[in-house]
Amino acid sequence: MSIDVVNLTHKFALITKQWDPKIIAQLNDYHFKIAKIQGDFVWHSHPETDEVFLVVEGSLVIHLRDGELHLNTGELCVIPRGVEHKPAAEGECQILMVEPAGTLNTGDAGGDRTVEDTAWI
Amino acid sequence: MSIDVVNLTHKFALITKQWDPKIIAQLNDYHFKIAKIQGDFVWHSHPETDEVFLVVEGSLVIHLRDGELHLNTGELCVIPRGVEHKPAAEGECQILMVEPAGTLNTGDAGGDRTVEDTAWI
Repeated sequence: MSIDVVNLTHKFALITKQWDPKIIAQLNDYHFKIAKIQGDFVWHSHPETDEVFLVVEGSLVIHLRDGELHLNTGELCVIPRGVEHKPAAEGECQILMVEPAGTLNTGDAGGDRTVEDTAWI
Repeated sequence: MSIDVVNLTHKFALITKQWDPKIIAQLNDYHFKIAKIQGDFVWHSHPETDEVFLVVEGSLVIHLRDGELHLNTGELCVIPRGVEHKPAAEGECQILMVEPAGTLNTGDAGGDRTVEDTAWI
């Protein structure tokens, strides 16, 4: 039985591009993904699934149509399915996301910031 | 839309008992649970699901029948369904687990360390 131990710091160190999520673990049919982000993403929602955001390092703002969430290192939230949101970060922020395998980063919005085939790292 | 921001440090501060997992978030039909652990747990497996362990603070050993995994702060692993394991920690360790709602802490082993109705915290 060979089971990997995944070190978050080591995995983030391998990421050179912002807004480019990478898979680090699979739990049944769910993926754990990490990303470095900075600036504003696009408004989108995931009609078919909730989505967890955990800030590993930095500060994340998640804009909602009726407010905004502020998450710092060691904080997480669950964006319910169907809820429009726009992640943003003033400085570079390292985030861990958990969602079903195949969930697109841009959800129902599509567009040129979509990562079609998220790779493992 | 009211969405909670969950601060891991604050949630762990509320836990006074070891080996007593508490739910901090729900993602579809999955629970995010935290626990403080120290000493040895019981051998068990979860025949129906994989299980993620993430060490938030401290050092965790997961004994397997053919080896052992050592996880420190910021490290995670996925124990595949059906794989016998025994978590242990020399000093107090704070862990985050992700698994389907209703997954018992003692899996198929049962016994007096089973937490039947895991509460939210």
